[in-house]
Amino acid sequence: MVPTEVTGRGIGGRRSRVSVPDLVAAARDGEARAVARLISLVEDESPLLREVMAALASYTGHAQIVGITGSPGVGKSTSTNALVTAMRLTGKRVGVLAVDPSSPFSGGALLGDRVRMQDHALDPEVYIRSMASRGHLGGLAWSTPQALRVLDAAGCDVVLVETVGVGQSEVDIAALADTTLVLVAPGMGDGIQAAKAGILEIGDVYVVNKADRDGADQVRRDLRNMIALAERTEAGWRPPIVQTVAHTGQGVDEVVRRVDEHRAWMESSGELRRRRVRRARDEIEAIAVTSLRRRWGDVHERTELDALAEQVAAGDGDPYSAADTLLATYAE
Amino acid sequence: MVPTEVTGRGIGGRRSRVSVPDLVAAARDGEARAVARLISLVEDESPLLREVMAALASYTGHAQIVGITGSPGVGKSTSTNALVTAMRLTGKRVGVLAVDPSSPFSGGALLGDRVRMQDHALDPEVYIRSMASRGHLGGLAWSTPQALRVLDAAGCDVVLVETVGVGQSEVDIAALADTTLVLVAPGMGDGIQAAKAGILEIGDVYVVNKADRDGADQVRRDLRNMIALAERTEAGWRPPIVQTVAHTGQGVDEVVRRVDEHRAWMESSGELRRRRVRRARDEIEAIAVTSLRRRWGDVHERTELDALAEQVAAGDGDPYSAADTLLATYAE
Repeated sequence: MVPTEVTGRGIGGRRSRVSVPDLVAAARDGEARAVARLISLVEDESPLLREVMAALASYTGHAQIVGITGSPGVGKSTSTNALVTAMRLTGKRVGVLAVDPSSPFSGGALLGDRVRMQDHALDPEVYIRSMASRGHLGGLAWSTPQALRVLDAAGCDVVLVETVGVGQSEVDIAALADTTLVLVAPGMGDGIQAAKAGILEIGDVYVVNKADRDGADQVRRDLRNMIALAERTEAGWRPPIVQTVAHTGQGVDEVVRRVDEHRAWMESSGELRRRRVRRARDEIEAIAVTSLRRRWGDVHERTELDALAEQVAAGDGDPYSAADTLLATYAE
Repeated sequence: MVPTEVTGRGIGGRRSRVSVPDLVAAARDGEARAVARLISLVEDESPLLREVMAALASYTGHAQIVGITGSPGVGKSTSTNALVTAMRLTGKRVGVLAVDPSSPFSGGALLGDRVRMQDHALDPEVYIRSMASRGHLGGLAWSTPQALRVLDAAGCDVVLVETVGVGQSEVDIAALADTTLVLVAPGMGDGIQAAKAGILEIGDVYVVNKADRDGADQVRRDLRNMIALAERTEAGWRPPIVQTVAHTGQGVDEVVRRVDEHRAWMESSGELRRRRVRRARDEIEAIAVTSLRRRWGDVHERTELDALAEQVAAGDGDPYSAADTLLATYAE
């Protein structure tokens, strides 16, 4: 099992042809190339996904999904790298999924961030994968859960999900995770940015990275006060704040402990099940909506939607009436 | 007509009750309060919107929609302010819509940015409005076009649409605009960020703001080279790069000229009509999808979707089969 960012696409490409059941079996056996090719099917919006997801369903539900969010420059990649190191010491199999919701391109654009992950490039118990989600009809909500299913069914104990790029989508990542880590750092005006991005509602564990810099204690105090004021929906979990220096590893073990504590609380409180049902709900909905959009957007013929759009653009009708007509067409 | 950020919500609140036809007529007459209340209906996802949009449809299509994007710190608010000043000198009625796609909160969180717009607070020919889109079932794609319809029907010649907050959604804003301005500034690592955010594909006019700072010429050269390399879909328009110092107004007139040139090119080339049909298509689709999601997500009863989500979360089924079941239920 060689962890790598596989560039070969699909299962009918220049590489050897493999059936879906064989590919799923290989992924279940821990073959990194099979895992990578399954995730490529997600990235390519392959029609084979239907068969893949049916084959994977009964093997899912084991992995702990940890979302990692934070503004550019807080040290997300370095922190992810350090978390992988710490989690590997406890014997866990770790997946890393870096999602770029702002870019239609995969691979290359993310390479700069991924280079820092090369500490783990030769560890057979670590999967590292970048994925673009912009091109998807359903975006992040459609593609990421399916990639997570692949990593989960392939036996990962933990999957770290991180967004990269300018469009951060913190809240979207939080909706996909069992536990959400929110990273901040001193000297970045994060106090104000935190309020804007709504991160005070989504963090299960807060990490003040670059804690060796001036202002780290102030950031911690500000965060503590702001979290106390924020309206949180779950009773019984007070999000801890951990200070780290990710590039030296300082504080990272404590982050891992806090993540494990959160997981234990999630299980005992029933919150884990609630979050996972909500996640399945979002996932089903995204697939259903994407399926409708495909039908509406069939590029091979001029669709009903095209005709309606021309009328609305000309002022000969409003978008609500047009939407009614569109849905009535579907119901026939 | 007093331009303001109106806080009164809905048309049945503590303020006087007004019928939709009266409200639409008042907005058409240029009453800023009526315009503000119509946009509040969008923000509140009011069921009255169906009636509002039907009443507005025949008055839309006049306004030029100008999207303004750029990373935090490039001077978007200051540039918007300067553009409003320049456009007012040519006698245009100007609307400004500031959308925060990352925040579920409206009003307060945006106030810091809006304060800089107070130059125009007493000008009766300028509408300024902030809007949160996070709470919407369909997000930016659902709410922003409807707010733009209101401003368009109310007689704005130009509407400047700007995203604020951490989640930038550059590409989403570009999809809504006739002309997209992309702002960059020296010393922000924008070269790399530009590539990540895909802004090289979306800008119709590029603005290097803070042109009095070191590095502005280099940013201009980098942009020039990167734009030359980027694959653009439209033939016939080479995006110009303008240098500005927004807080002194330097270069802003040239931006306005370039925006007008782009508009003229859009009309003569047929691209304007193409973009507007595509926009109407997205708008109809977003309304149709939101309507389905409301049905699926009816909070008053345990829906079919909830039952399916519980099965999928338990591993007793895959999300594709569940989506099929959901859509079959709808078709009955």
